[in-house]
Amino acid sequence: MKNVIVGQSGGPTSVINSSLLGVFKTAKDRGADIVYGMVHGIKGLLDRDVVDLSQRIKTDLDMDLLKRTPSSFLGSCRYKLPDIVGNEKTYEQIFATLKELEIYAFFYIGGNDSMDTIKKLSDYGAQVNSPIRFVGVPKTIDNDLAITDHTPGYGSAAKYIAATTKEIIRDGLVYDYPVVSVIEVMGRNAGWLTAATALAKGEDCEGVDQIYLPEVVFDVDKFLKQMGDLLKQNRSVVVAVSEGVKVADGRYVCELSDHVDYVDAFGHKQLAGTARFLAGKVAEKYGVKTRAIELSSLQRCAAHITSRIDVTEAYNSGGAAVKAAFEGQTGQCITLKRVSDDPYMCITEPADVHFIANVEKKVPLEWITDDGTNVKPELVHYIHPLIQSEISPLWVDGLPRHIRLHVKSTIKK
Amino acid sequence: MKNVIVGQSGGPTSVINSSLLGVFKTAKDRGADIVYGMVHGIKGLLDRDVVDLSQRIKTDLDMDLLKRTPSSFLGSCRYKLPDIVGNEKTYEQIFATLKELEIYAFFYIGGNDSMDTIKKLSDYGAQVNSPIRFVGVPKTIDNDLAITDHTPGYGSAAKYIAATTKEIIRDGLVYDYPVVSVIEVMGRNAGWLTAATALAKGEDCEGVDQIYLPEVVFDVDKFLKQMGDLLKQNRSVVVAVSEGVKVADGRYVCELSDHVDYVDAFGHKQLAGTARFLAGKVAEKYGVKTRAIELSSLQRCAAHITSRIDVTEAYNSGGAAVKAAFEGQTGQCITLKRVSDDPYMCITEPADVHFIANVEKKVPLEWITDDGTNVKPELVHYIHPLIQSEISPLWVDGLPRHIRLHVKSTIKK
Repeated sequence: MKNVIVGQSGGPTSVINSSLLGVFKTAKDRGADIVYGMVHGIKGLLDRDVVDLSQRIKTDLDMDLLKRTPSSFLGSCRYKLPDIVGNEKTYEQIFATLKELEIYAFFYIGGNDSMDTIKKLSDYGAQVNSPIRFVGVPKTIDNDLAITDHTPGYGSAAKYIAATTKEIIRDGLVYDYPVVSVIEVMGRNAGWLTAATALAKGEDCEGVDQIYLPEVVFDVDKFLKQMGDLLKQNRSVVVAVSEGVKVADGRYVCELSDHVDYVDAFGHKQLAGTARFLAGKVAEKYGVKTRAIELSSLQRCAAHITSRIDVTEAYNSGGAAVKAAFEGQTGQCITLKRVSDDPYMCITEPADVHFIANVEKKVPLEWITDDGTNVKPELVHYIHPLIQSEISPLWVDGLPRHIRLHVKSTIKK
Repeated sequence: MKNVIVGQSGGPTSVINSSLLGVFKTAKDRGADIVYGMVHGIKGLLDRDVVDLSQRIKTDLDMDLLKRTPSSFLGSCRYKLPDIVGNEKTYEQIFATLKELEIYAFFYIGGNDSMDTIKKLSDYGAQVNSPIRFVGVPKTIDNDLAITDHTPGYGSAAKYIAATTKEIIRDGLVYDYPVVSVIEVMGRNAGWLTAATALAKGEDCEGVDQIYLPEVVFDVDKFLKQMGDLLKQNRSVVVAVSEGVKVADGRYVCELSDHVDYVDAFGHKQLAGTARFLAGKVAEKYGVKTRAIELSSLQRCAAHITSRIDVTEAYNSGGAAVKAAFEGQTGQCITLKRVSDDPYMCITEPADVHFIANVEKKVPLEWITDDGTNVKPELVHYIHPLIQSEISPLWVDGLPRHIRLHVKSTIKK
C-alpha cells in the first residue's frame, strides 16, 4: 500500500483547498492508494480523527467546488507539537498511527508555525530511520514565509483587499463634505496585506492617501497632522492601516485606548480596533465625519473573489509537494521562485523546512517610503502579478456554491 | 429645446448608476436634447453645479462601466428642501435655473427622504402652473419604500450580504473550539437587509442560527440565554443582528455600552457597534471566542457582486421615469409591481409620490417567527428572486474597472 496523508493548519485562505486538491489529485495520479485527510490538522491525527478523501471528493464537480470553497475543508488547528526531547511518547504515537495507516508520505498545508510540525516530524523520522516523507505546502494570507517569493493565499487576499479598497474610495467621494475613512487590514507583524491597498490606484481610481505598515513605528501625533494636511486638499481622505501598527514604546495603537471593550472569561482584554481608535482621534481633532472599516475575516474567506494566478499556484504547490515526496525528499517545504517578471512566471522548488519553520518575513524597509506613510513602486510591482486573472464562482441560485462539508472520521474508535 | 435633468440623492447603492444610465439613455432615445446632471443632487442645482452628461457618457464602454461603478456618479446629498410656504425664494430660484436650462423634465433617484424633493417641487410646479414634469426613481439598499414591491439597490445588497454570510459561516467552522460570530447588518429601522442573511442557508450551508431584526424588541438577557443554548449544540454559532435593534425602553443596543468611543467636535457621541457590544457580552458570559463582523459600507458599494435582476430593474426604473414624464405625468415615483412569482416578474408602474415621500416600510411582523429570532419562509421566498443572476465586473489588470470620475460643472459661474 502506498497511502498518503494530508492536513491543513493555521488560519485558512481562499485557496487553501486548492492546495488540498493539488495534493489529492497528484497523489492519486502518481499511484497513491488512499489519500487520508487529518481532521483539524495534526490534532486530528493525535485523536485518530482521519478521513478517506476519495469518499469526499468524487467527481469533477466536487473538485471545482472544492477549489472555490473558503475555509479549510478538513478543518484546521493552531496546535504546535512539543519538542521531541522529553516528549518521545507523542511522536511514538503519531508514527504508530502513520504505520497503522501504511503512510508513505505526509503533507501539511500551513504557514511558518505549521511548518514547525513538518520540521519536528521529519527530524524525528530521521532519528528513528522512518521511511515516511514529510513535506510542507506553503499557505498564508500574511505572505510572511521565508525563502518563497510569496505564499499561496496572499494573492487572493490582496485582490480582495484592493478591489474592496477601490469601492471604499469611490464611496467616500459621494457626499460634498469632508470624510476620513480608515481601513484596517490584517497582518499583526508584516505589512504585506496592508500594502495591497496600494493596488487600488489606477486610471479609474486615485488610490489611498496613505499606507501605514507595522514595519514602521507609528506616531499618533504625526498621523493626526498628516490627516489635517490631507483634509486641506481633499474632500475625502482614505488611509490604510495595519492592525499591527505600534508606537515607539512597543504598544499596539489599539492598546492606547483607555477603554477595554470587555474582559473575557480567561482574563484576556479585548481591545477596540486600530481603525476605530484612529478614526475617533481624527473626529475629535478635526470635527469631520470618519469611518472605521475593518476588513475582518473576509480577507481570508472571501472566496467569491480570488486570483486565478493564486488558485493555480496553490494547486501546483500541493502537486509539487507530492512530486518531491514521491521522488524521495523529506523535511522540505515547497517554495515559489519567481523566474521572470515580464512575463510573470513562478516555478515551485522544495527548500529545507528548517529555514522556513518559525521564521517571519517582513516587508523590506527599502520598499517603504522614507516618511513611512506609503509603499514604493517596487512593492506594487511585486504584488501586481499575484492578483491577476479571475476564477469565477459557480453561481447556483444567485450565490456562490461551495462543496458540502461532511467530514466524518474513518478510524476514530 | 427638450432638455432634462437628473440627480442622485441619499446613500448610494451598487446599482444607482444603472438607474442614472436608464434615465440618460431613455431620454436620449426619446429625443431629449441635453441630459443635465445635478452635482450632489438638489444642492448642486441650488449652487448652479450642473454637468452635461453626454460629455461624460460617450461610448458603449462608458455605459457598461457606469453600470458597474459603485457610489453615485454625480455625487449625492442628504439635503431636504424647506417647506414651500415661507421659502418661496428657494423655489423661485430653482425654477428660474430650470427655465434657464430649458428643462422639460426633472428626475431624482433616491429613497423616501429624497422623494420629498419630488413631492415639493411638483407641488410648487402645480402652484405656479409650470409645465415641467417631476418624476422620482426609487433607490435604496434599505428596501423601506412604500407601495413598491421592493427597491432597486436592495437585491444587490442582499446578494452581497448572503454571499458574505455563507463565507463567514464556513470560516466559523475551521477550528475545533466554540466560536460565536455576530454579523452586524445595516438598516436602522427596517430589517430587510438583515433578513437577507437567511438566504445563506442551502444544500451547502447550514445558514445562520438566529436573525434579529429591528422590528422586534431586543432582550439582551434572552439573547444571551439563546447563545448559551446554541453553544450546547454547535461548535460554531453565527447570528445576524441589525444595527438598529432596540431594547424595551427604546434605546439602541449599542447605546447600552457604558463606553463612548469618542465625542466629535459637534458633541455627537460615537458609540461602539451593536455586534461588538453583543460579542463582548457573549465572551464575558461563556468564555468563548467571539467575532464581531460589521459588514460596513461595503453593503452599499460592493459593486463587484451585484444581482443582474437588480441592475436590470434599476435601469428599467430610470427608463420608466422618463417614459412617464414624456407622457405627461408629474409628481410620480416609479414603483415595481410583482405580477408573477413563478416565474418571477416585475413591471414598473408610476405611483403618486405623496404616498411614498417620507414613509418607511418595515418588515411585516407576520414574516418574523413568533419568538422573534428568525424570519419565516415567506420572507425568504420574497427576497429570493431579487438576488438572482450576475453581472460580471469588467476585470482590467486584476481588478473591477469603474468609470472615471471627472465631474466638472457646466454652468457654475
